[in-house]
Amino acid sequence: MLKKIFGGLMLAALAGFNASAADSLPSWRDGATKQAIVAFVEKTTREGSPDFVPVAERIAVFDNDGTLWSEQPAYVQLAFAIDRIKALAPTHPEWRGKQPFKAVLENDRKTLAAGGEKMLLELLMASHAGMTTEAFQKTVLDWLATARHPKYQRPYTELIFQPMRELLDYLKANGYRNYIASGGGIEFMRPWTEKVYGIPPEQVIGSSIKTQFEIRDGKPELVRLPQVNFVDDKAGKPVGINQHIGRRPIAAFGNSDGDLQMLQWVTAGSGARFGLIVHHTDGERETAYDRDSHIGKLDKALDLAKENSWVVVDMKADWIRVFPEKTSQ
Amino acid sequence: MLKKIFGGLMLAALAGFNASAADSLPSWRDGATKQAIVAFVEKTTREGSPDFVPVAERIAVFDNDGTLWSEQPAYVQLAFAIDRIKALAPTHPEWRGKQPFKAVLENDRKTLAAGGEKMLLELLMASHAGMTTEAFQKTVLDWLATARHPKYQRPYTELIFQPMRELLDYLKANGYRNYIASGGGIEFMRPWTEKVYGIPPEQVIGSSIKTQFEIRDGKPELVRLPQVNFVDDKAGKPVGINQHIGRRPIAAFGNSDGDLQMLQWVTAGSGARFGLIVHHTDGERETAYDRDSHIGKLDKALDLAKENSWVVVDMKADWIRVFPEKTSQ
Repeated sequence: MLKKIFGGLMLAALAGFNASAADSLPSWRDGATKQAIVAFVEKTTREGSPDFVPVAERIAVFDNDGTLWSEQPAYVQLAFAIDRIKALAPTHPEWRGKQPFKAVLENDRKTLAAGGEKMLLELLMASHAGMTTEAFQKTVLDWLATARHPKYQRPYTELIFQPMRELLDYLKANGYRNYIASGGGIEFMRPWTEKVYGIPPEQVIGSSIKTQFEIRDGKPELVRLPQVNFVDDKAGKPVGINQHIGRRPIAAFGNSDGDLQMLQWVTAGSGARFGLIVHHTDGERETAYDRDSHIGKLDKALDLAKENSWVVVDMKADWIRVFPEKTSQ
Repeated sequence: MLKKIFGGLMLAALAGFNASAADSLPSWRDGATKQAIVAFVEKTTREGSPDFVPVAERIAVFDNDGTLWSEQPAYVQLAFAIDRIKALAPTHPEWRGKQPFKAVLENDRKTLAAGGEKMLLELLMASHAGMTTEAFQKTVLDWLATARHPKYQRPYTELIFQPMRELLDYLKANGYRNYIASGGGIEFMRPWTEKVYGIPPEQVIGSSIKTQFEIRDGKPELVRLPQVNFVDDKAGKPVGINQHIGRRPIAAFGNSDGDLQMLQWVTAGSGARFGLIVHHTDGERETAYDRDSHIGKLDKALDLAKENSWVVVDMKADWIRVFPEKTSQ
């Protein structure tokens, strides 16, 4: 009898969670995934809860590519680099006979696809360095204003995952500070993350090239150099997060093996912890990929999810919608 | 006549500023320095002011050694390193015959003073690396709890500059976020800056050694390596600030040539800007030093202060008191 009463109370409590979450997370289908998210937020924010976490320690880290926005069929930053190379080509006649620039200028996808990381790095350096940090910001924003995704024909910043956007807002409304911890370029993201995700530049962590202080035309500036500074991916993620925040976050959200060490490090801390993997199961509304994917490969992290009690989002089943309503024409 | 009225209004306005500041900055003597601080805060925070700055952009950066706390007769972090070497010596019998460890263990100040940067680095690596980030935090806090300044016989965290502590609080109360940008070690400062300065770990920028993600005894940890990661000094300060914040702060506070490029970069931005140099002129209450000092040399930055309109604090004249009241026994 007592058990029945408690069971009833628990059900009522869960129903209550769902009701309050129904307002905050309308794009999440009711079910175990949504309940796990809400239960974590509830228990870490309710005064008197044994898992209560003070506001200062309510820190959540999110991967970006494939977790907050689509990374298929290619990283958005690569599309940016390719367009930059094309825009800069008239002042670089030597690129016409030189790989990997030749492949970019001739839309030679085969060579580009075979080029691997070394080639990607060469394209990034040529397109991301040589200007001041402030000039680079403007370049990124100008590009995002006109670039369109090849499949959806929408601005990239509209191809964020609506349920994740709601999750960011829901956490923020509950006293959490959301950080991005991305393998992508820190200065490629900072100009727009506030507007698109509500995440200010100081809460963005990412890979970077070196910068150098210079007095340019009498003005003190930071100039971007074609040298790798930090790679915020895989085992680099916890390192980058600690370097920026100086605390171990209590919640981590990712989608690929690149997020594995971040998930491990974050969820191994003491007290209440939360790990979540976005599993791209929806070939119709987005792209279905995991273990064998070239981009966003999810293999080891998926295997380790169960023993670590990480929540695995089944995009197809758990998300009522994937992208936000169309606002552009 | 009109001039007289305006003059009167201005005086009244200035008097008003002083009155409100009298509550917030009691350790600052009334005068041009205090007025300049208050006028800047007032004009950047008053709605409708042509110099109004939105809260998100109200970012101030502070050097630590010599700006927020005393750096004489030696950097506090060096005292920590020396005590750590002594504590670790029993497990390192080889140090007894090897410099610079021999000099530390024998209190051979002459050799230590002549050792320069290379020696300092060697001591830092031996005393700061090899443990997890969390174990290092504990080591720092344990040391600070018992270590005493050789001259004042007080805990180092009590030898902060009281007027600067008031300034931090005054800025914070006006919507500013205060960051530390120090040549000192980022993880040496983070464990205590919140308690001592009201500055949380994520707002601390500093020099660092590399860390590495490892599964240690089955637990995911970050382990500190004896390799330099970043030197947050001189031309490195604007680089470190941009890396962490992703915005150019609008106010910078320093005390030595190590802060020159930070002051230049911060105050060269558009809109209202503020630069301040703490000039150590008080040989009685603290230590008088500037152009010829081995520690905290202030030479070029002092020369450039006037043309850049940086405020130079005359510690002896501008500060009613230097250190906080004694709270420990």
